[in-house]
Amino acid sequence: MTSQELFENIKKKKSFLCVGLDTDINKIPRHLLDTTDPIFAFNKQIIDATHDVTVAYKPNLAFYESLGVNGWNSLEKTVNYIKYNHPDIFIIADAKRGDIGNTSAMYAKAFFDHMEFDSVTVAPYMGEDSVKPFLTHVDKWVILLALTSNKGAFDFQFMEENNEKLYEKVIKTSAQWGTEENLMYVVGATKAEMLADIRKLIPNHFLLVPGVGAQGGSLEEVAKNGMNNKCGLLVNSSRGIIYASDAEDFAAKARENAIAVQQDMEKLLKVHGLI
Amino acid sequence: MTSQELFENIKKKKSFLCVGLDTDINKIPRHLLDTTDPIFAFNKQIIDATHDVTVAYKPNLAFYESLGVNGWNSLEKTVNYIKYNHPDIFIIADAKRGDIGNTSAMYAKAFFDHMEFDSVTVAPYMGEDSVKPFLTHVDKWVILLALTSNKGAFDFQFMEENNEKLYEKVIKTSAQWGTEENLMYVVGATKAEMLADIRKLIPNHFLLVPGVGAQGGSLEEVAKNGMNNKCGLLVNSSRGIIYASDAEDFAAKARENAIAVQQDMEKLLKVHGLI
Repeated sequence: MTSQELFENIKKKKSFLCVGLDTDINKIPRHLLDTTDPIFAFNKQIIDATHDVTVAYKPNLAFYESLGVNGWNSLEKTVNYIKYNHPDIFIIADAKRGDIGNTSAMYAKAFFDHMEFDSVTVAPYMGEDSVKPFLTHVDKWVILLALTSNKGAFDFQFMEENNEKLYEKVIKTSAQWGTEENLMYVVGATKAEMLADIRKLIPNHFLLVPGVGAQGGSLEEVAKNGMNNKCGLLVNSSRGIIYASDAEDFAAKARENAIAVQQDMEKLLKVHGLI
Repeated sequence: MTSQELFENIKKKKSFLCVGLDTDINKIPRHLLDTTDPIFAFNKQIIDATHDVTVAYKPNLAFYESLGVNGWNSLEKTVNYIKYNHPDIFIIADAKRGDIGNTSAMYAKAFFDHMEFDSVTVAPYMGEDSVKPFLTHVDKWVILLALTSNKGAFDFQFMEENNEKLYEKVIKTSAQWGTEENLMYVVGATKAEMLADIRKLIPNHFLLVPGVGAQGGSLEEVAKNGMNNKCGLLVNSSRGIIYASDAEDFAAKARENAIAVQQDMEKLLKVHGLI
């Protein structure tokens, strides 16, 4: 998928919402446990209920891996279901991978060839040769961790050398490895005030912004500081949408919450003159 | 497993060899492709041929994930096979994981509860709350990336603030999160000259050292700079052992190469007065 195609979808749906599929067998409604694949049954209903207001889905790999072979099977079915029924939706493998070259190449194969993800989140610690193997797949994207939304972000990401923080160095250095057509960045919404500075470094790249809602970030602040002339934002919500209810009405409630976020996003897209 | 148990096994086998199971369907001998599970068939023969000179096995998750559900199935069988037949051998999930707290907790569940790995490699970029969920499992270990063996290590790991490099900050900071009984570090053999300085920071922790052999590091240098009074080293070899031959004699050749490394290690353990 190109950035223009993503932007067209954002304009069509009046939304830059990414729904995080952090599907936890212990949190999904009890009645689904009688189905043959509860995780996929849950995801399918969430997707059916939210696809028209959502431009991206982001399965969080840990939740699937914790169930072993069965979880991996549910993941593959979920990706196939989205790709077949909603080919315009951008799918993110939230995997935080990154290893020496031949190993990263294998991860890229897992997510881009074996499965049909459009993108994968990658950790930058091991540098260029750990990231590049993901960038050689046509129409596929790396979403590199820059500034994360968690408390631990302050442990290392703000380390400073020559007035440059580690997360800034990660952005500046890695921007040379890829292009605006195959590289996005994770920037946590809890650090929205830093988005404006990050936009000076990378005015055109798309940013994946987690941490709105449950983690406390403000959508308005994110748009104010991070939106560009192609929107340039995918804002993720996981728990606030998929766990809106733990009863049989979970999908309807997820839809209600997704629509509420979409309507806020529509206003912000209008304010910024994009629709 | 405790560090003392690991050391006892090192003394018994006169070896601190870790065999990396980077099992690639395109590199294993062709005759195995006729079996129902070629990846497991390969691993089983490698394990049968090397377990008496090996103290650790390190499946590289990327190689299994690249095959999807089947790969994950081969991985589970491999871990079960090692644990059942050789319970004294330390098993490392080389996964380079790390995410916000609730997600890292799910990865820990995947590797420590669903499967019986003894340890998992973790990337430090997201800080304390991304690492701690792995440290709460009794007798399980985090092996944190400090200084990696690849070229990209120079992109960020040597960033310096107040005369402290990022990899040093990672070591010093994270040493407060765990203990010598649940935390090891990855230190690449290609940076063996820095091992002596790292030993000053963490004299007692075990180090996992990749990059001997194919990646060019010297075992003697590693031992000289990194060995402590409990050995304190697990040195990994992957391709040099498992791909010693691509014919029907692959397991016998793997054994020959593993024994050659073990004999070098035996000499070094003697030189350092540990056996």
